Amino acid sequence: MKDLAIQFGLKLREKRKELGISQDKLALLAEIDRSYAGRIERGEVNITLEKAYQLAEVLGCEVRELLP
Amino acid sequence: MKDLAIQFGLKLREKRKELGISQDKLALLAEIDRSYAGRIERGEVNITLEKAYQLAEVLGCEVRELLP
Repeated sequence: MKDLAIQFGLKLREKRKELGISQDKLALLAEIDRSYAGRIERGEVNITLEKAYQLAEVLGCEVRELLP
Repeated sequence: MKDLAIQFGLKLREKRKELGISQDKLALLAEIDRSYAGRIERGEVNITLEKAYQLAEVLGCEVRELLP
């Protein structure tokens, strides 16, 4: 299941870059720690559904777009 | 964000009943505690993405089908 976190992280990063938002800015908007944002993008964290929805909201996309 | 857990739980229960699987059986298949399965269905738990995928797999559906 580690793949899941990695794929989610890659999609999150891709979407963030598409929007031209820095990792710091994403962390600020999603009210998460900067280092935690980095860990999510590197697939090191098994995040909660709630957090996934929060990140999708910040990026103005559907959570489905971030899922593997 | 509490709505999210509640909606996920309702969809999970609906899908489970559709398949005629008991909550106990679901818990067994998903390798989670029986009481935890109940708490998920009642929307009392903010589950991880990994767990959501695991439950979808057990129910033979896409995780998207369980998401609000």
